[in-house]
Amino acid sequence: MGESVFLKACRGEEVEYTPVWLMRQAGRYMEEYRSIRRRYDFLTMCKSPEIAAEVTLQPVEKLGVDAAIIFADILLPLEGMGIDLEFAKNEGPVIHNPVRTRADVERLRVIDPEEEVPFVMEALRMVRKELEGRIPLIGFSGAPFTLASYMVEGGHSRNFVLTKSLMYNEPSTWHLLMEKISEVVVRYLNAQIDAGAEAVQLFDSWVGCLSPSDYREYVLPHVKGIMEGIGGKVPVIHFATNSSTLLELMAEAGGDVIGVDWRIDIGEAWKRIGYEKAIQGNLDPVVLFARQEVIERAVKAILDSVGNRPGHIFNLGHGILPKTPVENVVALVDMVHRLSRR
Amino acid sequence: MGESVFLKACRGEEVEYTPVWLMRQAGRYMEEYRSIRRRYDFLTMCKSPEIAAEVTLQPVEKLGVDAAIIFADILLPLEGMGIDLEFAKNEGPVIHNPVRTRADVERLRVIDPEEEVPFVMEALRMVRKELEGRIPLIGFSGAPFTLASYMVEGGHSRNFVLTKSLMYNEPSTWHLLMEKISEVVVRYLNAQIDAGAEAVQLFDSWVGCLSPSDYREYVLPHVKGIMEGIGGKVPVIHFATNSSTLLELMAEAGGDVIGVDWRIDIGEAWKRIGYEKAIQGNLDPVVLFARQEVIERAVKAILDSVGNRPGHIFNLGHGILPKTPVENVVALVDMVHRLSRR
Repeated sequence: MGESVFLKACRGEEVEYTPVWLMRQAGRYMEEYRSIRRRYDFLTMCKSPEIAAEVTLQPVEKLGVDAAIIFADILLPLEGMGIDLEFAKNEGPVIHNPVRTRADVERLRVIDPEEEVPFVMEALRMVRKELEGRIPLIGFSGAPFTLASYMVEGGHSRNFVLTKSLMYNEPSTWHLLMEKISEVVVRYLNAQIDAGAEAVQLFDSWVGCLSPSDYREYVLPHVKGIMEGIGGKVPVIHFATNSSTLLELMAEAGGDVIGVDWRIDIGEAWKRIGYEKAIQGNLDPVVLFARQEVIERAVKAILDSVGNRPGHIFNLGHGILPKTPVENVVALVDMVHRLSRR
Repeated sequence: MGESVFLKACRGEEVEYTPVWLMRQAGRYMEEYRSIRRRYDFLTMCKSPEIAAEVTLQPVEKLGVDAAIIFADILLPLEGMGIDLEFAKNEGPVIHNPVRTRADVERLRVIDPEEEVPFVMEALRMVRKELEGRIPLIGFSGAPFTLASYMVEGGHSRNFVLTKSLMYNEPSTWHLLMEKISEVVVRYLNAQIDAGAEAVQLFDSWVGCLSPSDYREYVLPHVKGIMEGIGGKVPVIHFATNSSTLLELMAEAGGDVIGVDWRIDIGEAWKRIGYEKAIQGNLDPVVLFARQEVIERAVKAILDSVGNRPGHIFNLGHGILPKTPVENVVALVDMVHRLSRR
């Protein structure tokens, strides 16, 4: 397994072709997924190891990607912490008891993931067995800012007014919240690694709403602590969107691979991050709605911008969108392999 | 009027203190505005010059800002082009006949703004008269990408799938759409200048969803054409959000002042843009929900990052949010004046 192109690229080693996997590669764009989704609601799918394992493996066969990522949701560990979570139809996640006060934060439990989200570890073990070492398996967790924003806002947010207000007006409450979440994230990722995850990704999807100075003050120390808590056992991918001006700070916070979105030229991003880290990205997910010649041009532009430097993992800049034509996703993986072959 | 601090700063000239105005300074955060809004719907307010003029002037007295900006909406010129526009309650703008095909684009009319949106020009003339030269009056327009995205998506969008799909899959239709909108924008801004606007701002609020290479190919030439069409008659502020990696390209497209959001350190942004242009920004609007000492620290950080270089106009990184405490907005303007005095 140490020989997989994906893990080699995470470590900046030479590979014969650029490895590729796709965020949300197990998802609604795929008929195989939708046919299961019609029978079970989203949380049931996440909490049933057999289903989660099956869905994790669907894109592996269909797409020929170089890594699998466990099917789960970043909000799963929050339930055990005391968060009343629901995935409302067409609305995304809704949290019925948002965290707004010091007392709310103090009430949060720092969970043992093996007790509270055992189904994720069980699914990881099942997928590892099924994969028989063909490709590596990635575990993941939400990063503390992104998880905190859901907890405080009560769901998706456009302007993060409540989250930032707490951060600005009650910094000690904010930091306590971030510490509790970070401790859970460390335990959760370590449990996933113990269960077989061969790399992990930290999703800080919404942290790009912060200014660089706010990131440094309110987020960076906590992410750094998480990286220390994982302690280099497996490669860590540190991902965010809208984060072009945070890249240096994200690299400082840690991670072996920095995941970048499409808003920056990937060569320029890597220069800012520093070549001692690997890089992951960065096709605009909407390009997959275009004709295949347009997709191929965009793939080529990314590979050209990276050049021959080892340590690039091809991915989208954010998750695959639900209505993406599946044949374009299949073609994308093939293009990356074909166009990058040394 | 050439002596106003705002216009001097637009031209990069020395000023005694940093001028400040705020995007959406006329808006729901102010009781005076809400009391009018309770009596009229939003479009009626925009289309009644007396009301638009009154609302434009409300923050001038209350805040002591260094410029007024005409109360209007970027979507107003679209109606004359053939777009069926509605401001649905709590939903934002809804377009009932979105533009999706070549035929849809061909059908769009290139309007004469004096015929189709005369109320904006009338409001500008009324405000100029009322202001009696105390502070300058800014006119504005949406930029072509942002307007096109509303027309294609039919309203706000999260991922801009339809807009980018049109762009990628039917580039000639896309460019025709952008040309038609750009011609309207040029006419509209020139009409505003003729009616008394002493500076204009081009709002490309959503263009930050594009990669730099897509911006260069699908947007830049059209914005450049608009700048040429205005021809340097008054200073032009070129504004976008989420656009930290587009700043060099936005500067290349044109404008005397580049408006930046809070996601980048303003000193760093100015270095990238080049000091031959002025800069506007860039407080996170959510900072206005914080205690005043937090606001003051953030204001100071922006002024320090700019240093003593002339050509900075203080503003938020995006519009004032509806629930912003008005006393903090008043305090902000005072802080900028006090802390920046030479």
